[in-house]
Amino acid sequence: MNFREQIQRILPAWASATGDDGDIVLSSRIRLARNFQKYPFPHHASDSQLEQILEEVEALTAKLSQQKGEYKLTRLEALTPVERMVLVEKHLVSPQHVSKPAHRGVLLREDEVASVMVNEEDHLRIQTILPGLRLYDALELAFQLDDEIEAFVDYAYDENRGYLTACPTNTGTGLRASVMLHLPALAMVDQVKKVLAALSNLGLNVRGLYGEGTEAHGNLYQISNQVTLGHSEEDLIGKLISAARQVVEHERNTREALLKDSRIPLEDRVCRAYGLLSQARLITSEEALRLLSDVRLGVDLELIPKVNAQAVRELFLLTRVAILQKLIGKELSPAERDYYRASVIREHLKN
Amino acid sequence: MNFREQIQRILPAWASATGDDGDIVLSSRIRLARNFQKYPFPHHASDSQLEQILEEVEALTAKLSQQKGEYKLTRLEALTPVERMVLVEKHLVSPQHVSKPAHRGVLLREDEVASVMVNEEDHLRIQTILPGLRLYDALELAFQLDDEIEAFVDYAYDENRGYLTACPTNTGTGLRASVMLHLPALAMVDQVKKVLAALSNLGLNVRGLYGEGTEAHGNLYQISNQVTLGHSEEDLIGKLISAARQVVEHERNTREALLKDSRIPLEDRVCRAYGLLSQARLITSEEALRLLSDVRLGVDLELIPKVNAQAVRELFLLTRVAILQKLIGKELSPAERDYYRASVIREHLKN
Repeated sequence: MNFREQIQRILPAWASATGDDGDIVLSSRIRLARNFQKYPFPHHASDSQLEQILEEVEALTAKLSQQKGEYKLTRLEALTPVERMVLVEKHLVSPQHVSKPAHRGVLLREDEVASVMVNEEDHLRIQTILPGLRLYDALELAFQLDDEIEAFVDYAYDENRGYLTACPTNTGTGLRASVMLHLPALAMVDQVKKVLAALSNLGLNVRGLYGEGTEAHGNLYQISNQVTLGHSEEDLIGKLISAARQVVEHERNTREALLKDSRIPLEDRVCRAYGLLSQARLITSEEALRLLSDVRLGVDLELIPKVNAQAVRELFLLTRVAILQKLIGKELSPAERDYYRASVIREHLKN
Repeated sequence: MNFREQIQRILPAWASATGDDGDIVLSSRIRLARNFQKYPFPHHASDSQLEQILEEVEALTAKLSQQKGEYKLTRLEALTPVERMVLVEKHLVSPQHVSKPAHRGVLLREDEVASVMVNEEDHLRIQTILPGLRLYDALELAFQLDDEIEAFVDYAYDENRGYLTACPTNTGTGLRASVMLHLPALAMVDQVKKVLAALSNLGLNVRGLYGEGTEAHGNLYQISNQVTLGHSEEDLIGKLISAARQVVEHERNTREALLKDSRIPLEDRVCRAYGLLSQARLITSEEALRLLSDVRLGVDLELIPKVNAQAVRELFLLTRVAILQKLIGKELSPAERDYYRASVIREHLKN
């Protein structure tokens, strides 16, 4: 298997592709919380009940439409710790989900655009991820899978309250919608916090994708809805899309202003980042994110024409600790990771 | 004129070439202080006496052997401030010499290997520079030019004290010999000061070529003799060569130890420096020296095989403030210099 094939096997489809406003919106994600009527919520369920749920999902797997790719249920217990972390890094499962692997699983469509966490906080968390700002498409995909599953499962549903969930904040639509944004220009002019604070006031939840606290390595931010009860899915998504479009607008205006007023320092910054990425022999995960963010901006603004945009998009995931080890094919010490991470970046930027 | 021809026209011959121990010894320089018997030393001479000296040198210029290149006397007053600084940056004249350009000049052989400062501290300071550790060759060249000039000039000479000079520390042989060393490995392991302090105890003078105080940007150091009286030229040079060889040995051992014990971090450092130099759009003189020092080490140790060693050697001079402006062909503000410096580096590393 060559390097390209290996990467395609490891990365989810959305990571290599791009969509609407794809220069700034990396991905759109929909998650629907669903529960079986006949079993207690996972935190109250016995091991044998959790196992029964897993078996019911396993049984219906083959009956799902396999048109857009085969579905497969993977038991988390069957995976190595690194393989579980790979799922987390690909945003297919939550860190909490893999922390207790027994009787837990993930149903994955081949291209990983659609997936279901089984026995996380709820029995089922149906999830779809698409590149770019495509929440309605992602919702439609999620509803399709939801309908198919519902043909075999009686969901816990209340006429007044809607879908019942383990945590009351998810009750109602059970919907959590989110978008992942890349905001390097706003970060450069120190405006990220201000812009994102305005979103919190609109009832949206904002967090840096990587890094702790307000630090967001790679300038990647996730915006999601906080409320699910008392609104239709379309309302919730409409609000998120309109907020995301505003942030995209801010980021785009800032990029244009930087190009106009500080083109040379900007070019210097993104080209230096490219110089380091294409030459370093040792690189930490944090530095890689920081430099990739600069290079991605440079590619978006056509300041580094010879760099392949898809390669840069993919490197955000390929340089993550577990995905990197999966790609190299063995467990690596932290020092070895820095070495192999630098090799993967050099190799991938060359292609 | 193409870029290569322009560079050859601007740089002295020794800057592009290499010689014995040329990986560590950049150049060897000889300077002989000589004075006319019939005129007072420059600081006591009248303007008209200084002018007469300049005219006497002008008259004898055509009579010098032109075998190895035509000689030409340049009056410092005829040069722009940038052109004068170019001479300083090429180590052909001292900063003091150009600070008072009236009635002062420099006699230059075409290849700038041999030159004479006229009316600096002494009437004549004959100077030769060769690449690598070649002090005896440089001395022979200086003596040849000295003899040729002596055919037309009565030197101030005392049977007991030797050549008389404006400053008594130069009296005797009038010789100042120096070597320029590149010591990046010793700098990395923080041993430069210790090694150079030992030289001071041997009566040698040590200073960083660029930078103030103990800071030596680019890790370039100059070692020279302090004493001239009471020793033959050959003794003085023998002592300097033996000291230089010891430092070269230390530097070389340290390089080997680094290669053996820290090959990957070393490779990372020199490759990152190359990545930055080949991509930056803005670069200060100081950062350029620092990165060039790393890249030069990488080239010496064959860690960056595709980089042209001569180009790196030349860039140490080409990135200097005045030489850069001479190359670009106009005066530049500090911000413009950073921009053009980065361009020149990128262009030159590409070739």
